[in-house]
Amino acid sequence: MTEVNRRTVLAGAIAAGAAATLNPLAAIESAKASTPLQGKQAPGWYRYKVGEIEVTVVTDGARTFPLTDSYVTNIKKEEVSAMLAANFLDPANITNSYSPIVVNTGSKLVLIDTGNGPAAAALPNSSYGQLLLNLAAADIDPGAIDVVVISHFHGDHVNGLLTADNKLAFPNAEVMVPSVEWKFWTDDGEMSRAPEGRMATQFKNNRRVFDALNRKVTQYNWNKKVAPGITPVATVGHTPGHTSFIVSSGSGKIYVQSDLTHHTALFAGNPGWHVFLDQDPGMAEATRRKVYDMIVAEKLMVQGFHAPFPGVGHLEKAGNGYRFVPAPWNPSV
Amino acid sequence: MTEVNRRTVLAGAIAAGAAATLNPLAAIESAKASTPLQGKQAPGWYRYKVGEIEVTVVTDGARTFPLTDSYVTNIKKEEVSAMLAANFLDPANITNSYSPIVVNTGSKLVLIDTGNGPAAAALPNSSYGQLLLNLAAADIDPGAIDVVVISHFHGDHVNGLLTADNKLAFPNAEVMVPSVEWKFWTDDGEMSRAPEGRMATQFKNNRRVFDALNRKVTQYNWNKKVAPGITPVATVGHTPGHTSFIVSSGSGKIYVQSDLTHHTALFAGNPGWHVFLDQDPGMAEATRRKVYDMIVAEKLMVQGFHAPFPGVGHLEKAGNGYRFVPAPWNPSV
Repeated sequence: MTEVNRRTVLAGAIAAGAAATLNPLAAIESAKASTPLQGKQAPGWYRYKVGEIEVTVVTDGARTFPLTDSYVTNIKKEEVSAMLAANFLDPANITNSYSPIVVNTGSKLVLIDTGNGPAAAALPNSSYGQLLLNLAAADIDPGAIDVVVISHFHGDHVNGLLTADNKLAFPNAEVMVPSVEWKFWTDDGEMSRAPEGRMATQFKNNRRVFDALNRKVTQYNWNKKVAPGITPVATVGHTPGHTSFIVSSGSGKIYVQSDLTHHTALFAGNPGWHVFLDQDPGMAEATRRKVYDMIVAEKLMVQGFHAPFPGVGHLEKAGNGYRFVPAPWNPSV
Repeated sequence: MTEVNRRTVLAGAIAAGAAATLNPLAAIESAKASTPLQGKQAPGWYRYKVGEIEVTVVTDGARTFPLTDSYVTNIKKEEVSAMLAANFLDPANITNSYSPIVVNTGSKLVLIDTGNGPAAAALPNSSYGQLLLNLAAADIDPGAIDVVVISHFHGDHVNGLLTADNKLAFPNAEVMVPSVEWKFWTDDGEMSRAPEGRMATQFKNNRRVFDALNRKVTQYNWNKKVAPGITPVATVGHTPGHTSFIVSSGSGKIYVQSDLTHHTALFAGNPGWHVFLDQDPGMAEATRRKVYDMIVAEKLMVQGFHAPFPGVGHLEKAGNGYRFVPAPWNPSV
């Protein structure tokens, strides 16, 4: 918070006798002319139509953390850093954006993925975990969500199922999960074989979240609609059951890519780079290349969970990879 | 407005006896599950810091009109159309975005350019002239604006000085205009020599606007600050007094380009293309190339009046021209 109310500060300074070091008239004049800095960002939601369907991108915010040697597992940190700089980004830090979407099919209000959860928003200096705040700004009642569809079981997609006090964030929603993903993360054998560290932590986190839901979920299968106009498709590698979605209505169609790429500039630009979160990096890369070639060929509109808000645009071939071309902001819907 | 309240429609249909062709229970179930489409876009403002200065981009909206032979004066319509398509844009129409900015220097609240004015917002199906609406959304009181700085005297930059009933939209603001621009548009000889059509209309419009202000303006000269941290620089060609701005504070610096390029994808991508609005197209092109080469060399952040909202980013060389690379949306300020 950088907001300073100059009127108050100056009035206080003058009242306290600091006028000896200030020209009081100049101070008053300056105070009169100034408006305090606001320091507050616009609410992060954006709406567009896909045929008769209304999509509202509702950002969960973004998180910045230091670039480390292990962020891209098969490329030296210096090369990653140079790629960030070439994209006019901070070469020392990664900023990861999170954008769940709400799809109003006309008969169902569907949330795809849930962000990091309000507990993350409560962390010091947090700028993520904001889904519920931005839903409110977009005038969408969490109680009106009919279906929550999860793409895969990483914390930034499932943790938002719960409020900060571990209640259901979407109390009236059916929670739909990919059956392959469900099987993997709820398998006690898989859990017992998970390496200590990140994988073990992810297993524990998924037990925590879904146990709080009493494991009350509906498993869905790929290529069978989860709601009118929303078809899940297998895009595995990032996780065993990682799922993307095709949303279509009339002649409108978008490809909701989930985590087909993490940080867009880095991993679309370099589809051969592997983010440390890819569980099967080789398969994730093969999936990414195959789907991106299809998207380019069909000139499909893409919605990217980790693309900077609002994260909707197209892909084009560029160099040895792809470039994400954001759609221009439309002041209407 | 595409909003349909299904509850009302279905309840009405059932009450009217349409239940004969509907399964009433299914209809009620469907109505219960649905939330009306909202059809409303997020308010168009976005905030960022330049050193200690706070910039708020406040969009005036965007206007879509058919691509004609005369839009790019030195290129065939088919080639322009193909360039639009290559950028995933509608090949038959031009969408022009407008983004004035509010600069809070800490001591002055400065608005640079004013958009098309609220009279434009009142036109049928209008999606422009929205500056005052978006200022309100950003919690900025028009009465708190200390200074309005005008870049040049085209209607989409000056018409917003007036309310729909021709009152001062920013009643407490000093209005600052480039002295060269003022001299040209207020010169009776220039006006008498203006060709019928667009130029004559622009002269009349400027008389209308500035006469409503009783011609009460402050003329500013290039390279002399108009407010703390805001330096106007000559970028002539588009109009005789066309002005851009350097906003700087500490190590922060942005280049506010005004109309150095119109439609960004077309004219940054092809700096040799001439928009019909360039008064001296050759000079406008030379200015564009010179300034863009400087911006690329210095890796300056750019704020573009006609770049899609929020219109802040960088420029890189691409092919025979330049590519605008939008800055990622920051959920904080």
